[in-house]
Parts: sequence; C-alpha cells; structure tokens
Amino acid sequence: MVGAGQLARMTSQAATGLGIGFRVLAGSATDSAALVCAGTVTGDYTSMDDLRAFAAGCDVVTFDHEHVPGAHLAELEQAGRQIRPGPAALRYTQDKLAMRDRLTALGVPCPRYAPVADLAEVTARAAEWGWPVVLKAVSGGYDGRGVWVCQTPAEAAEVLAHPVRVFAEEHVAFGAELAALVARSPHGQAAAYPVVQTVQRGGVCHEVLAPAPGLAAGQATAAQRIALELAAELGVNGLLAVELFGTPGGLLVNELAMRPHNSGHWTIEGARTSQFEQHLRAVLDLPLGDPRAAAPCVAMANVFGGTDPGVYARYTHVMAADPGVKVNMYGKSIRPGRKIGHVTALGDDMPEVRARAVRAAGYLATGEE
Amino acid sequence: MVGAGQLARMTSQAATGLGIGFRVLAGSATDSAALVCAGTVTGDYTSMDDLRAFAAGCDVVTFDHEHVPGAHLAELEQAGRQIRPGPAALRYTQDKLAMRDRLTALGVPCPRYAPVADLAEVTARAAEWGWPVVLKAVSGGYDGRGVWVCQTPAEAAEVLAHPVRVFAEEHVAFGAELAALVARSPHGQAAAYPVVQTVQRGGVCHEVLAPAPGLAAGQATAAQRIALELAAELGVNGLLAVELFGTPGGLLVNELAMRPHNSGHWTIEGARTSQFEQHLRAVLDLPLGDPRAAAPCVAMANVFGGTDPGVYARYTHVMAADPGVKVNMYGKSIRPGRKIGHVTALGDDMPEVRARAVRAAGYLATGEE
Repeated sequence: MVGAGQLARMTSQAATGLGIGFRVLAGSATDSAALVCAGTVTGDYTSMDDLRAFAAGCDVVTFDHEHVPGAHLAELEQAGRQIRPGPAALRYTQDKLAMRDRLTALGVPCPRYAPVADLAEVTARAAEWGWPVVLKAVSGGYDGRGVWVCQTPAEAAEVLAHPVRVFAEEHVAFGAELAALVARSPHGQAAAYPVVQTVQRGGVCHEVLAPAPGLAAGQATAAQRIALELAAELGVNGLLAVELFGTPGGLLVNELAMRPHNSGHWTIEGARTSQFEQHLRAVLDLPLGDPRAAAPCVAMANVFGGTDPGVYARYTHVMAADPGVKVNMYGKSIRPGRKIGHVTALGDDMPEVRARAVRAAGYLATGEE
Repeated sequence: MVGAGQLARMTSQAATGLGIGFRVLAGSATDSAALVCAGTVTGDYTSMDDLRAFAAGCDVVTFDHEHVPGAHLAELEQAGRQIRPGPAALRYTQDKLAMRDRLTALGVPCPRYAPVADLAEVTARAAEWGWPVVLKAVSGGYDGRGVWVCQTPAEAAEVLAHPVRVFAEEHVAFGAELAALVARSPHGQAAAYPVVQTVQRGGVCHEVLAPAPGLAAGQATAAQRIALELAAELGVNGLLAVELFGTPGGLLVNELAMRPHNSGHWTIEGARTSQFEQHLRAVLDLPLGDPRAAAPCVAMANVFGGTDPGVYARYTHVMAADPGVKVNMYGKSIRPGRKIGHVTALGDDMPEVRARAVRAAGYLATGEE
C-alpha cells in the first residue's frame, strides 16, 4: 500500500488477520501505519524510482490516498505491475473535472458545474445558479483544502487569486449527505455496504450513521446502484466510496474515492467484513466478504486533536463511562483539529448509539463532557 | 509482550486499534508476531539480560506464554518493573502441582491427584481411581506434550522413564470440556465472557462453541464464578482462562492459563470486546470492555497444517463458499498438525454455525471438502 496514514494502518490490521504479507511505502517512519507495520519501506510516492523499487516486492500495489502521479502509475502498469485500482480508474479521483464530465456522460446525476477561467465566468454562473457558488480545485488545492463555498464575488476572487485550477459548481441545498461504499474485484464481483449518512461541519466529516436514518429504501437502493454502476463503468478494483447529496429532487453525486474511506470506518466493528479487509480481498481478487451490518444501528464519530496532547490519559474516563464503545486511535501526534482517531458504538436505537459515540469522541478530544 | 507467537500477533492488532505502543520479544524474526509487528525485539526469554533490556523500554510487561523463568520475573518485579500477570500468579501456570494444591486449599473442585515418585505409586493410585491414569508434567514436558493418558502400567512406565517430574490424576469421565475466560485489572475490576465448550481431539483443541451448547445457566454461572474467584484469589492481572470438565457431579477445574487463550479466539468477531483488547486493557489497568457476545451463536475451528503448503491458494474456495466466515491466519510455515490459523462463523443456529466453521477450517487445512 502506497501511503502510510491511518487508512494503511487499519488495512494492516486486516492483512495481519488474513495472513497476507503487507508493506507500506511511508514518507516518514513516524507515519501512522509505519509506527505499527513491520513491512514499512520509507520513500517518496512522487519519485518514480521509489515507486518502482517498492512495487518490485509486491504482488499487488494499492493506495491509501489518490496523490500518486498518474503517469507514474501508468509506467508501473506498463512494466507489468498489478496496480489496483489502476490509473485509468484513479484518474477520476485525481481530476475532479474529468470525473464530472465522465459521470455526466454516463447519465449519473451531479450538481450543475462548469469550467471557469476567471471571475467573470464565475459571476455568470452565479447569475444562473444563485450565490453561493462552490469552487473546486480540479486537483489538489491549497491550505489543505480543495473546495470553497463562495458567498460573494469577493470570496470567489480570493480563491481565483491562487495558482490552482478550479471549476464552479452550484451550491446544493441538500437534506443529508450520504455515502455509498462498494467493493469490486478484477473478476467483477461486487458487494455493497449499507448506505450511511455523514454529518459534516466545515467540510469535515464528524459523524457517520449506519444505516442512514430516515433514508427511504428506494433511495438507499438507488445510491447503491449508482456506486455499483460507477465501479463497473470506471473499472474500479478495490473499494469505491461515493459521496452523495440527498435532495428533494433525488440523489446527486458529490465526490468519489477509490480506497478505504472515513465513511466506512464503522464497518470495523459494525459490519461482518470491515472495509479494510474488503479492500484487500478486492485488490487481491479474492471472493468478497459479507458486507452486512453486525448491529441494527452503528454510529462512528471522529476524534480531533485539541490543545491538550494528553489524549491517552482520557481513555480511563471514556472506557469506564461506556464499556461498549470502541476506541480506534491512529498513533498520530496531537494538533488542534487534526483527525487522530475515531470511536464506534453499536446498538438498537440510533439516537442513543449516536449520543454514545459523540460523547466519547468529544471527551477524547477535549477532556470535557 | 514476551513471546511472539500468534497470541502476540493478535494482541498487536488490538494494540494498533487502541493506539497503544506495543513491542514483542521474539525468539526469531520469523515468529508469527515478528512478521507483522514494527516493535519487534529479538532476544531469548530465558536470558535475564535480554528480559531486562526489553522490560526497560516498557511501561508494562505481559506474556504470550508461561515459560519465562519465575526467578527472572521476580527479579524484574523487584527492580520496579510492572509485570502483569506477576510471578506470584504465574507460578500457578508454571507449576501444575502447586496449582492443584492451591486450588484444593481454596476449596475449588479438581480431579483427584497425587504426587508420584515411581510406578508403584502410580499403580497404587490406579487401584483407587481405576485405569486409565493421567500423568501430568509438573512443568514443561517432552515431545511437545505435558499430559499423558496411560491405559496400562506399561504406558505409565514409559512416561516415567523420561527425566520429567510428573504427578498423577484420575481420568475424569466428563460430559463436555468447558472454558471460562475472565479478565481482571490491578484495580480489581473483572469481566467474564460467556462460558464456551471446547472440542478436543488427542488433547488438542479443534473447535470452540460459544456459548457452550446445552450448558445449564446455573452451571455457566458456576464456571464464571470459579474463574472470577480464582482471578481474585491468585491476584491475576490480565486474562485468566479456566479449562473445566463438566461432569454429572459438577464442574472440575482442569487447567489454568493467564494470557489470551485459544478458547477465546471466537471473541475477535464474536464478542463486543476481543480477548486481546481485553488483556491489554486489564494489564494497563484501563477499564474493561463489554465481554458480551455479538451474535447468538459463535463457532471457532482451528486450522492445522497438512502436507500441502499451499494453504493460501485455498482462500478463494473458502471465501467464495461462505462470504461470512472469518479467516484468521498466523503467517506460520506449514507443517503437518501445526496450528496455523482459525476460522470463526457467527449466526443464530449452533449446528449450522459450527458446520460452517468446521468446513472452512477443514478445507483450508486439506483442500478437501
């Protein structure tokens, strides 16, 4: 696995269980996965030499992020390496404008969007769609962000002042943000997890509720169908996470990811097969595992770093208060706002399960009730 | 954790989840846990120097086996190291005669037993109890065994010919072999898992059924109470597994282990808190996790090596035949009869769940239905 963040770390746990040899290409020996994984190789994922050397020791190469240059991946593939997902699929996570164009060509409902070259083109779109207008980096971004909700022309101008290629999207007045997670193997076998609701604040996922509360069965099936069709059409090997907006007019696809995804962390304890095991099974072309939930209601809440680095000292309180809550921490140093772990709660009643997860995550983050 | 077998390997998965720094003292870099664990130190657990150096880097030292010399542990403890479980408790897993004497003093029901110095003393006991007579090594054994069921004086003489100190026990005509697994922390908090049935052949555990089918509620509670009382009386920090015989006259204690135990592997997927996480929480004096089962019926079957080393090639069939079966492999080289993994199945009907686990384990072992 190229990349050694928490996704690689949790994938390593699944690889250990399956008895599958697992290596990570880590930027640093203190990366989340490098701290625990015996098979850590240090190197630079933007270096063709480092990628070539790493891939030479692997039957299959997969990823915990989408930032490896596509040209490098194509070169590895041409050299006969098994790259899963392959560069032809990964392109649609690396170039969001190409993704929008492809989805539109496939007839998959998306927000209205348009390439924009300058502020005049943004304001022309806003005249049609109304403010706010969303600007999205085609690839990457700046200051750790790639999406900006602009309320005014001045805010749009501020984004356009950066040397980042962007396009414009209408701002969708959604009822809920949903995620549909599926796996697909080279054989073409596919499996779909229950559709979840993600609760985001400031563009950051804070909670995941599985299954999505109040989602009509028809909408859930529609979301799963979109994800399964996209996985097949785009030739995805491994996981595909599709983030969607639920609107009065139906579902709109927001983003794609072809790797384990924050919206699937609940599956570690909450599904019969975790997304990490499922990703391994898919990229290794093993038969997929049962994706069904292990409990009627599962809630996941992310833990963010606060100002106090003593998060581990707060385990005692969190575990004593709720012996059933599952704490997953990533071994990362504590910085305010940094995602450092997550907690999961299972049960029969979503409001209760959600309150347990949120309470535990909040206490781990801040030391306050 | 001293020792780097599969118990340490599975404990490392739990430590990764909790974000707890975890090191193993491995005899070899190819030990099961050493293959996956970044924190591997190679050394000899019978060497005081190696133990001292290993312990110096740990807040708490625990074990994946009971073979560290008690004098070494006492020396570490006197040097201020946190040894959990401590040598005073571990003694009762290292000296089975001392265990029998202590249990008898505590009023815990055990099979009848007696120290024996020679064949005459064995035959004298057999005259009282009847043949077969069980001979047990007080400590260790030979040829990988420490228990011999002797049908005749000649078989007993064969055992006595080895330079191993043994004692005699009556052979119990049990209805079922049971195991009660509990955890106890230095604070004195304790948690008991559901009592399981272990299915043994030739003295080797093949299957574990949770909860033990047909066990009366009163008997299950009695087994849990014995385990909880023993954990408290013996001052156990960490897990205590108590193997029991279910007989028409009641429960008899067979063996003790103070570490994660094969009879608790079902808890990885089958309980709200796995025994590996629970052991870590107990030895670190963190509040214990919910020990309740995650499904009405859970069955675990061990996978033994056969003559064909190609076990991994059989994943495809096993996973395709049953997407819900959970495969756990230990990364060990394949030797006939060697325990190399286990599989777990969950469901609502024990005969069906058991058949699924046994079928998957058998196919992984032999490649035959």
